[in-house]
Amino acid sequence: MRCMEAIPTDPLARLRAAADARAVAGLRRTLRPRTPDDDGLVDLASNDYLGLARDPRPARAAARAATVWGTGSTGSRLVTGSTQLHAEFEDRLTEFTGAAGALLFSSGYLANLAAVSTLGAGGLVVSDAGNHASIVDACRLARGRVVVTPHADVDAVEKALVDRQEEHAVVVTDALFSVNGDLAPLGELHAAAVRHGALLVVDEAHALGVLGAGGRGAVHELGLTGDPSIVRTVTLSKSLGSQGGAVLGAAEVIQTLVDTGRSFIFDTGLAPACVAAALEALDILQIQPELPGYVRARAREVASMARGLGLETNDPAGAVVSIVLGTPEAALRAAAVCAENGVRAGCFRPPSVPVGRSCLRLTARANLSSDDLSAIRRALTAVAEMKVNA
Amino acid sequence: MRCMEAIPTDPLARLRAAADARAVAGLRRTLRPRTPDDDGLVDLASNDYLGLARDPRPARAAARAATVWGTGSTGSRLVTGSTQLHAEFEDRLTEFTGAAGALLFSSGYLANLAAVSTLGAGGLVVSDAGNHASIVDACRLARGRVVVTPHADVDAVEKALVDRQEEHAVVVTDALFSVNGDLAPLGELHAAAVRHGALLVVDEAHALGVLGAGGRGAVHELGLTGDPSIVRTVTLSKSLGSQGGAVLGAAEVIQTLVDTGRSFIFDTGLAPACVAAALEALDILQIQPELPGYVRARAREVASMARGLGLETNDPAGAVVSIVLGTPEAALRAAAVCAENGVRAGCFRPPSVPVGRSCLRLTARANLSSDDLSAIRRALTAVAEMKVNA
Ligand SMILES: Cc1ncc(COP(=O)(O)O)c(C=O)c1O
Ligand SMILES: Cc1ncc(COP(=O)(O)O)c(C=O)c1O
Repeated sequence: MRCMEAIPTDPLARLRAAADARAVAGLRRTLRPRTPDDDGLVDLASNDYLGLARDPRPARAAARAATVWGTGSTGSRLVTGSTQLHAEFEDRLTEFTGAAGALLFSSGYLANLAAVSTLGAGGLVVSDAGNHASIVDACRLARGRVVVTPHADVDAVEKALVDRQEEHAVVVTDALFSVNGDLAPLGELHAAAVRHGALLVVDEAHALGVLGAGGRGAVHELGLTGDPSIVRTVTLSKSLGSQGGAVLGAAEVIQTLVDTGRSFIFDTGLAPACVAAALEALDILQIQPELPGYVRARAREVASMARGLGLETNDPAGAVVSIVLGTPEAALRAAAVCAENGVRAGCFRPPSVPVGRSCLRLTARANLSSDDLSAIRRALTAVAEMKVNA
Repeated sequence: MRCMEAIPTDPLARLRAAADARAVAGLRRTLRPRTPDDDGLVDLASNDYLGLARDPRPARAAARAATVWGTGSTGSRLVTGSTQLHAEFEDRLTEFTGAAGALLFSSGYLANLAAVSTLGAGGLVVSDAGNHASIVDACRLARGRVVVTPHADVDAVEKALVDRQEEHAVVVTDALFSVNGDLAPLGELHAAAVRHGALLVVDEAHALGVLGAGGRGAVHELGLTGDPSIVRTVTLSKSLGSQGGAVLGAAEVIQTLVDTGRSFIFDTGLAPACVAAALEALDILQIQPELPGYVRARAREVASMARGLGLETNDPAGAVVSIVLGTPEAALRAAAVCAENGVRAGCFRPPSVPVGRSCLRLTARANLSSDDLSAIRRALTAVAEMKVNA
């Protein structure tokens, strides 16, 4: 039995001690609200890859939707939270991505929770070690056995599928990993999943609008959109410049989510303004299918700049350029140096990245100008000097 | 070893079989998209308690915000997803609710996940059996020991706290239960939590804008807003007519969420249009502090109508009136009868309610007219006749 006297009378003391320990380890975080002009910095930190969050056309569509449909969807998608606008978006996304069906969620996070937890329920879930936090949480909520495989290790995935006792299994992976910016071995993962009767769930959060013909994503690029064993999740909050998420898949998958997806059934439907903005973004993407190519080209330019300056960087498949600094302190200092030179860079520290891999995460945008690129060169030069002098 | 030949080659066959079984049990669900005029039905199904989702003032604020700030927040709150608008909303919500601090999330669901999973991590979580699905998921994500106590059973909560081996504990409850519409024994739960050095997390989703002075919620009504051991979660998707969620609590709680809340760190910030709509709703609530009283009065009217007609109903503390029908089929039929009589009613079946407790969920609105109340009387009369003839 626990000794009654040992009960802490202040339940916040523990939280204070933990916060102090994080401060010592360089892991305290601070919110820095943006101004309307983004403080005049070149944005290399957001996920607004196509610049559509700041385009007047989706903003007009959002304004109209708030007036016609209201500022909120007013309930669960199953009660009052589905409007004709939601249905139209699902139809258009289905058509655009070549999926059999699509189901909207209020965020990509909740779309992942529902997809992996319902499809994996009571079975085996095989998840890449580099997968997004929402997938990690989803694995936990599936309440089955989870095998975390080393990053991009197809043999380990195959072994987990072969060794399993469970009848059904789901393999889940980011298409384009959000911090490292590398592509998953999707073709091989798909082959392994098919060989072993498993579903493959692919999170296209950073691939939609960036990879594949006209931005149709990584699964589309591989010609696998017709395969019913592939389930895709997307978010409306990155290339589409809005908010929300969706699951793309066969009719059976969509019905399973509608009937049993907890984060679908028990969550308020996406706000009409967000649906309308994303719908307009899809329209723009279809009128300007060259945008995804622009963002990839800009990312390669930024990465080769960084490499030329002696910085450790990736070979970007999409928009994400990652520059490894090592310690949290070095990454924070590098982000500050970028800001002093007019560039807003993302700074990633544990738990977002493994210990020792704190980094800058730079995201290219389709609409980076040559002035922007000059500022980026100045900023990266200063980061490289900082590293030399460290 | 599992026999290799037994692997199903069609991983969707299992999903089809499960869907068929749900169909037989009356548990298939269908999305019915609303038209802009709500199909001409009186809405007793949404959570738009104050009618603010369809008020032109928040719609105008949303439109402005989409233009000034963009259609999406463009990133995690910790990277580019915090704007001055987010900070302003957090300040205003803090002030309105008398909390020490507030932190915005993209949904109430994700606010609950972060609050309970971070505060409960590695400790004991004591959760009411009637708690919302997002709290249930949050308990699972806390990865500690979870004790589910019978609904509104303070003795069971106290026993769980006394019997624990863990040093820290969290008690979590809905303030106003979303389907039954009853109030939690908050005062007694608070006393028990304080006696045993536990935090009390209260989900005010259905209480904000409905209970307490001017709609400040159930904790405010009890005069407990200053107690640092109470953490509140709210959603912007019900009385505030928008989308999003927030956690209200002491500085230590907010800092814990900022530094370690996975569904905070790894989710895109709430879209500016949604923040602005909710901010305007808070303004309206302060100008019209009588609105929450109206919604409670309308709910009592609807409940007493139902009771007068011999239907099994609750004694509503807030906006939610629940009418128990029993089987899923009876609840579905009753909802159809309501629609034929011009009223949209929510229909709740397992897993949203326990087996045998399928029900209509009627939600009062502050702006129900006397014509609306006549339609409601006709609809409930028809439901009562249906029950008699069943
Ligand atoms: C790979 C990945 N999946 C899912 C999400 C969650 O999407 P959302 O922010 O729309 O909830 C994100 C980013 O936030 C992500 O990077
Ligand atoms: C009690 C309760 N908590 C949390 C939520 C989740 O809020 P949201 O729909 O904003 O995600 C809801 C409703 O959806 C609810 O009823």
